[in-house]
Amino acid sequence: MTKPQSSPIFDKIALIGIGLIGGSIALAARRGGLATRIVAATRSEVGACGEAARIIAPKLKPDCIVSDVGSVKQAVVDAMKPHLPAGVHFVPAHPVAGTENSGPEAGFAELFDGRWTILTPLPDSDAAAVDKLEAFWRGLGSQTDRLDPADHDRILAITSHLPHLIAYTIVGTADDLGGHLNSEVLKYAAGGFRDFTRIAASDPTMWRDVFMNNREAVLEVLQRFQEDLFYLQRAIRWGEGDKLFDLFTRTREIRRALIHLHQA
Amino acid sequence: MTKPQSSPIFDKIALIGIGLIGGSIALAARRGGLATRIVAATRSEVGACGEAARIIAPKLKPDCIVSDVGSVKQAVVDAMKPHLPAGVHFVPAHPVAGTENSGPEAGFAELFDGRWTILTPLPDSDAAAVDKLEAFWRGLGSQTDRLDPADHDRILAITSHLPHLIAYTIVGTADDLGGHLNSEVLKYAAGGFRDFTRIAASDPTMWRDVFMNNREAVLEVLQRFQEDLFYLQRAIRWGEGDKLFDLFTRTREIRRALIHLHQA
Repeated sequence: MTKPQSSPIFDKIALIGIGLIGGSIALAARRGGLATRIVAATRSEVGACGEAARIIAPKLKPDCIVSDVGSVKQAVVDAMKPHLPAGVHFVPAHPVAGTENSGPEAGFAELFDGRWTILTPLPDSDAAAVDKLEAFWRGLGSQTDRLDPADHDRILAITSHLPHLIAYTIVGTADDLGGHLNSEVLKYAAGGFRDFTRIAASDPTMWRDVFMNNREAVLEVLQRFQEDLFYLQRAIRWGEGDKLFDLFTRTREIRRALIHLHQA
Repeated sequence: MTKPQSSPIFDKIALIGIGLIGGSIALAARRGGLATRIVAATRSEVGACGEAARIIAPKLKPDCIVSDVGSVKQAVVDAMKPHLPAGVHFVPAHPVAGTENSGPEAGFAELFDGRWTILTPLPDSDAAAVDKLEAFWRGLGSQTDRLDPADHDRILAITSHLPHLIAYTIVGTADDLGGHLNSEVLKYAAGGFRDFTRIAASDPTMWRDVFMNNREAVLEVLQRFQEDLFYLQRAIRWGEGDKLFDLFTRTREIRRALIHLHQA
């Protein structure tokens, strides 16, 4: 999908963390000829993003760009920005791409092809630095977009964090409920459960941090979800099939809108 | 996957309803050479399964086999059995297969290949009739299993009905919450939401009937799910990341067990 650049966008890329995302960035950057040099440090050496920012800060050259790939943006800004010296350009970003696999061996060059990467520049972000990072993500194969960090967190709470929490919950509930029927539960997983188990196999550490770091937005959408689920629960109890039918018809339309957007 | 039979299992198959499942049965039966003749009536002529049983009852020959493909079994037994004359063999069945598409043009011969079909014979079911129907489903490409109707309904409430209800709910909640951000919600659906929209595009009429007909089992698993979700919601509110991490680690193991079972 991506043609090699005629000249690299960056002289040097330093990756901190080379799991699924970092490893894929390295492979896709090499594929696209986006950097003269790529160096990497494993994340276990530096801990979480705020601590990483604190440790790397003294070594950062003026005018260099610092970015991240976290699923929550406001918390990343709060944790990293105070450590970064003036003259360094901080441009948070979030590639909305991934698989249920994690670790360095999970990375592949095509991970970002055609997927969205959301940049969340800050009000004082240097326009040229934002443009440069955006060009880099396009070079990795992504489509790009820009959002305010708080808007990003609200949207992802709906499209990603809530679905993951629900999937984790339902897989746990099914496992508990199965009891002596557990082998049958796994056997007949094709009926819908299987899709949830795939989501619920995502990296536990990363997802714990997502929920800890996007607490307010997640709790808000969770409450709305609970209300809606109780509405359906009550409709089932009282035999009000029309309420179910109306929702099921509406959600089918949403799927059609999504297919229309070429996302499905 | 399936080789043509040397001789047909049935002289005549009469399908009532030729949507995704009925249409696929016709195509797979032809592929496998399972019947000398296949005739079909559209379901809109006969209404629900109890009414269908009542209408066809006078025309049924002694020793013929009557079956169904419903997602809930006890309710089907209750609705159909009283109408069926003595000498006719009633063997309910449920192919755990489907797509989010419905209607006759959605059918395809490979739909049942490698999937499970659960037969729920009754205590007085004729053993030869059950064997014959089981051979038919194997000829269509299925693996087969036998369960008590009530066990079937409990297991499917977990593996299929609850996941569908949750998917329908979350897609509706997201649509309501999106508001002015709705186009972004659809755009970033790849973060997890997309899998739910696929499930939530399933046939509204069929799924309304599933929830109306398997009410007790669905309400029971729903209550368990709600408890578990509130547990996680509280953990998020109080910053108890270890509770999330423990569950997320456990659900990942369940996925691995599922892959081990060659279902994923």
